[in-house]
Amino acid sequence: MTPPVFILVRPQMGENIGAAARAMLNFGLEGLRVVDPRDEWPNSRAVAMASGAGRLLDFAGPYEGVNAAVADCDYVFATTARSRYITKPVVTPERAMEQARALAAEGKRVGVLFGPERAGLENEDIAFANSIVTVPVNPDFPSINLAQCVLLMGYEWRRQTAEVPAEVMVMAGTDFASRIEVEKLGDHFEERLEAAGFFFPPEKAPGMKLAIRQMWARLALTRADVQSLHGMLRQIARKLQ
Amino acid sequence: MTPPVFILVRPQMGENIGAAARAMLNFGLEGLRVVDPRDEWPNSRAVAMASGAGRLLDFAGPYEGVNAAVADCDYVFATTARSRYITKPVVTPERAMEQARALAAEGKRVGVLFGPERAGLENEDIAFANSIVTVPVNPDFPSINLAQCVLLMGYEWRRQTAEVPAEVMVMAGTDFASRIEVEKLGDHFEERLEAAGFFFPPEKAPGMKLAIRQMWARLALTRADVQSLHGMLRQIARKLQ
Repeated sequence: MTPPVFILVRPQMGENIGAAARAMLNFGLEGLRVVDPRDEWPNSRAVAMASGAGRLLDFAGPYEGVNAAVADCDYVFATTARSRYITKPVVTPERAMEQARALAAEGKRVGVLFGPERAGLENEDIAFANSIVTVPVNPDFPSINLAQCVLLMGYEWRRQTAEVPAEVMVMAGTDFASRIEVEKLGDHFEERLEAAGFFFPPEKAPGMKLAIRQMWARLALTRADVQSLHGMLRQIARKLQ
Repeated sequence: MTPPVFILVRPQMGENIGAAARAMLNFGLEGLRVVDPRDEWPNSRAVAMASGAGRLLDFAGPYEGVNAAVADCDYVFATTARSRYITKPVVTPERAMEQARALAAEGKRVGVLFGPERAGLENEDIAFANSIVTVPVNPDFPSINLAQCVLLMGYEWRRQTAEVPAEVMVMAGTDFASRIEVEKLGDHFEERLEAAGFFFPPEKAPGMKLAIRQMWARLALTRADVQSLHGMLRQIARKLQ
């Protein structure tokens, strides 16, 4: 597996380069390349902003020209708003990183180009790319910055590769109650409620009892919940006597 | 469709509140709520940072206590790292916004809680939530900030609702060439190459010709590409005569 390299083309602010490095490492990506940065390199503001992700900057170049930065790439994406003037496939970040994962699994190196803060990528930069990636922003308020764009691409890479289960039930030192424990809780409530005259009128009692059993079954109670409910009921009964 | 409300609990920096408002509007969300902000309200730094998304702040409260901010919500997510001490479902941002879309489609109001910058949500805050959302970050470098977390949740909301096609082919003022146009291009090349003695030795010629036809078929040439290749070939032939 060859993870993609993220290539910042003519970035202007050191802070944004540092923030991009952090965003990459947040999602486990380390291959950062910087092409023709506006300011000196190494860039002290980039280093300060990157903090724990500073090592990404040590291996980031800088490269002279996009050509040099993509030379060893097998497939290149350009992140930019969709243009009517370039004949090219336009994919979502999700589809792009799906494709990147498939390419990476074959040992291919994927590059992702990110444009400078103000102007974005030029057509000359996009000419190096096989496809365009466009983040599906609100067309009435599309402003997302360089580090945010890097963050979203990194997030999609991780989503495609990390195999995080969509949903897990975390059990804090307990288990779900067994059927028999839930039954006994139902019995305990029924007994106390019977004694309290809750099931009235008598002809409605079977329906009321069934509804309460349905509720206990539906609630996915833990063993701790069941103990706690037994305890509440016992204490209230004790107080009432 | 009732879009979810994003609830910032005890946010500290005005800049982060403004950046969160921007990130929400980038993905078409407008329901921002602020609970017990550290500084004065309205917050001038939040307003400056929000710029085009300033109107979200005008309707953001502030609310006193999480209780007040979630009072009209039918389902609440808490964004936080997974905890071993709370028995609750933990979902990915994707699954959370899938569920939010389903609830929104039934007219239910979904709230998403975001904790303060430094400490994150307290257990007392999480007690208001039905489920926990955890962004699948790199466990060795998990630091993502408040506005980034809001950005990712907003992105997932839009991904679940905007119906953006995963891939489209943008044609800049041209169409794909028809089969017959590609055939004629193949004929033109074959004729010129034949004249140039390219198909040698003769017994290999059929295989070479077929391979070139396969290439033209595979390349997904546009009408403009075909014209351009005819033109190149004609000009080279003219020069050679």
